[in-house]
Amino acid sequence: MKIRDFRIHPIAIGDPPLRSSYGLHAPYALRTIVELISDDDIVGISETYGGEAQVRQLEELREQIVGANPYRLTGFLSPMVEGETGDVDRSQTWHVPGENPLDATTRTYAAIEVACLDLIGKTVGQPVCDLIGGRVREQVPFSAYPFYKHPGGGGEGHDVREDEYGEALSPEQLVSQVKKMVAQYGFTSIKFKAGVLEPEIEIETIKQLYRALGPNVPLRIDPNSAWTVETSVRVGKALAEELGRGGYLEDPTAGLENMAEVRKRLLAEGIETPLATNVAVTCFADIPRAVKLDAVQIILCDHHYWGGMRQVQQLARLAKTFDIGLSMHSNSHLGVSLMAMAHCAASTPHLTYACDTHYPWSAAADEVVKGGRVPIVDGCAKITDKPGLGVELDYDQLARGVERYKNCKYRKRDDEAEMRRHVDPKWKRLLPRW
Amino acid sequence: MKIRDFRIHPIAIGDPPLRSSYGLHAPYALRTIVELISDDDIVGISETYGGEAQVRQLEELREQIVGANPYRLTGFLSPMVEGETGDVDRSQTWHVPGENPLDATTRTYAAIEVACLDLIGKTVGQPVCDLIGGRVREQVPFSAYPFYKHPGGGGEGHDVREDEYGEALSPEQLVSQVKKMVAQYGFTSIKFKAGVLEPEIEIETIKQLYRALGPNVPLRIDPNSAWTVETSVRVGKALAEELGRGGYLEDPTAGLENMAEVRKRLLAEGIETPLATNVAVTCFADIPRAVKLDAVQIILCDHHYWGGMRQVQQLARLAKTFDIGLSMHSNSHLGVSLMAMAHCAASTPHLTYACDTHYPWSAAADEVVKGGRVPIVDGCAKITDKPGLGVELDYDQLARGVERYKNCKYRKRDDEAEMRRHVDPKWKRLLPRW
Repeated sequence: MKIRDFRIHPIAIGDPPLRSSYGLHAPYALRTIVELISDDDIVGISETYGGEAQVRQLEELREQIVGANPYRLTGFLSPMVEGETGDVDRSQTWHVPGENPLDATTRTYAAIEVACLDLIGKTVGQPVCDLIGGRVREQVPFSAYPFYKHPGGGGEGHDVREDEYGEALSPEQLVSQVKKMVAQYGFTSIKFKAGVLEPEIEIETIKQLYRALGPNVPLRIDPNSAWTVETSVRVGKALAEELGRGGYLEDPTAGLENMAEVRKRLLAEGIETPLATNVAVTCFADIPRAVKLDAVQIILCDHHYWGGMRQVQQLARLAKTFDIGLSMHSNSHLGVSLMAMAHCAASTPHLTYACDTHYPWSAAADEVVKGGRVPIVDGCAKITDKPGLGVELDYDQLARGVERYKNCKYRKRDDEAEMRRHVDPKWKRLLPRW
Repeated sequence: MKIRDFRIHPIAIGDPPLRSSYGLHAPYALRTIVELISDDDIVGISETYGGEAQVRQLEELREQIVGANPYRLTGFLSPMVEGETGDVDRSQTWHVPGENPLDATTRTYAAIEVACLDLIGKTVGQPVCDLIGGRVREQVPFSAYPFYKHPGGGGEGHDVREDEYGEALSPEQLVSQVKKMVAQYGFTSIKFKAGVLEPEIEIETIKQLYRALGPNVPLRIDPNSAWTVETSVRVGKALAEELGRGGYLEDPTAGLENMAEVRKRLLAEGIETPLATNVAVTCFADIPRAVKLDAVQIILCDHHYWGGMRQVQQLARLAKTFDIGLSMHSNSHLGVSLMAMAHCAASTPHLTYACDTHYPWSAAADEVVKGGRVPIVDGCAKITDKPGLGVELDYDQLARGVERYKNCKYRKRDDEAEMRRHVDPKWKRLLPRW
């Protein structure tokens, strides 16, 4: 069994004007769809970050991929994930996920690993989760992922998406957004992207969510490091009740030392709300210091940049060993990534929180999966008996995505530039801002 | 694809009268050969610890195994490895490996995992190492494993094995044993089982080995916790040069605190010889304290009791993350285990030392692998393109092993009883002895 062809499809998908401490989402998010075609004409697929750099990094592997046995390719390429070092700052404090040159190799490796697994699964008739240890759950829980946002559903010019959720720049609008999302997808936990408005408004937003949803829906707040230690502690105290019921405080402040300080001060106040991160810990090399400082109690995994599904399983083992919880990070994505995240989560016993997903922010018009959008029911993506990732490409839709990429001006994600373009010409990311 | 049959074969194999701080090896070592037969009549095999308890623990899984899909069985049974806890002492300080009731589930799980992987590999025509991430090496290095021993090659009555190596109860005899082993197998590193004679004699043994083999052959010494902290430090100092060149001091003393004390004192003397363990750290739950105390710098993995090959890969990732080396532990075994160890090692990037193996201590008469003994050439077992583990069963040989089991009186490993029977009727394991 050999890989006879390797195809890389850069695509653009409509993305609503979502806000975070990084800035503003552009009208298009960039993704890359990878195809590995075997000599039996079976196609393995994956989805990863987009833009020019990602395409180039994948393209550079062509010689090693074409002609390779997909069972062995992941071992052969393993120096791409083994080479990581703690001597460099790979944090997502300043780099938005997918734009960090220091995790280029783990990201690129992951895209190949997932496509190999899908190819193998489709060849032998087995789901990916069962190739990598076997499913431990069939319903993979995801969180609602509400954002403050400007009006608009994504896309540009004649290619705009319906604005399903409308503007959300106040607590009330945010609560209405969440209610809509919960009604549509059945989510039973909520991850709220903060770091956008004054902390007092964001506290009020969580309080309103808590009142609206009741104490049995775990709430998380993630300001992407926008706060000082002081503000983080203040928010942690103000939301002790609301975040303390199975939720968490995610990356309130930048850097492991500051996170550790927040943790210490909250504990001193009797507040046990755990701190989560996908910013301060982005690779294995970050973990020893995080453990030593007790800086984080939950790590957000993401097979897209941690080096693939097996690396996530290894991360989960490590997390369990050190009594650290495991959640899952997400970026703007389509159904191929959703199913990859679901298969990864399905075969990872120590996944202790519902996974993040941006999936509700993407539109049916952009989906490249045959049959259209992957259902999320009762907040869960379902693992079935379908081979591989359980999804195949709709090539017409894929061609539209590629066309959209060609026609749009975006070649990398730059939320700061977008913020300057549309909201405030002088906007700069400030850490801490509050 | 379903498992239609599950066969458990308890066997006995000749084992020479090897000595360790646990006592004396019995004339027979007990092993269990597991077969999983698919509805396509393909057979997946594994080898694990032997004796009545192991057979019973495997037998208890029959209902869950027969009818299962081998791709999914490992996920379904994963509570057997996920349930481990740090609240109980699972150390091998007093239990010989394979006789610890507290790792019964991880041991039993591992036997099933490996047989599933062999079955899958033989079904799809791929080697096991390539099913679990892909080979990162094709030549898997093993160490010579010299023991002090009494005359005899193993077996009883009319069923005795040739004594290939003769008696070794002095430094000179031990050196001659090693030379013979190295000449035959090409080993390029040496693991010496100590804790048997006075420490001064064991120091002298290592010094003679060093002189005989030169500074480029890494030397390890493993007294299985037989020494006090004082003695451990004394030996570490006496052998600073000999163990310091890529070798290590393995389990000199019992307990993580004592190990940490030895490390601290050696470092204070400027001696950086790392400490290794397969006694103080036998499961993931042991690791946080080991890290905190800097008690061990090398962990000996063993898929047989760590819960299988994927757990070993996870252990390796954890070890790499915390800058801990990884070596591999061995017990008396045949070619099925040798190849499982080799496939596991071949797909584990962070394996930083040659693996232990007892294989030279087993005899061709006992090998159950078709074609006879697996070759170790230049100290390495070779990973080939053969599917699964790359070995199949010789059913005549297997039947002889089962017959041997039925006819012998041993039903579990008890080196202390054996020592009393053959060497000293009053012998007791003492920790520390020196």
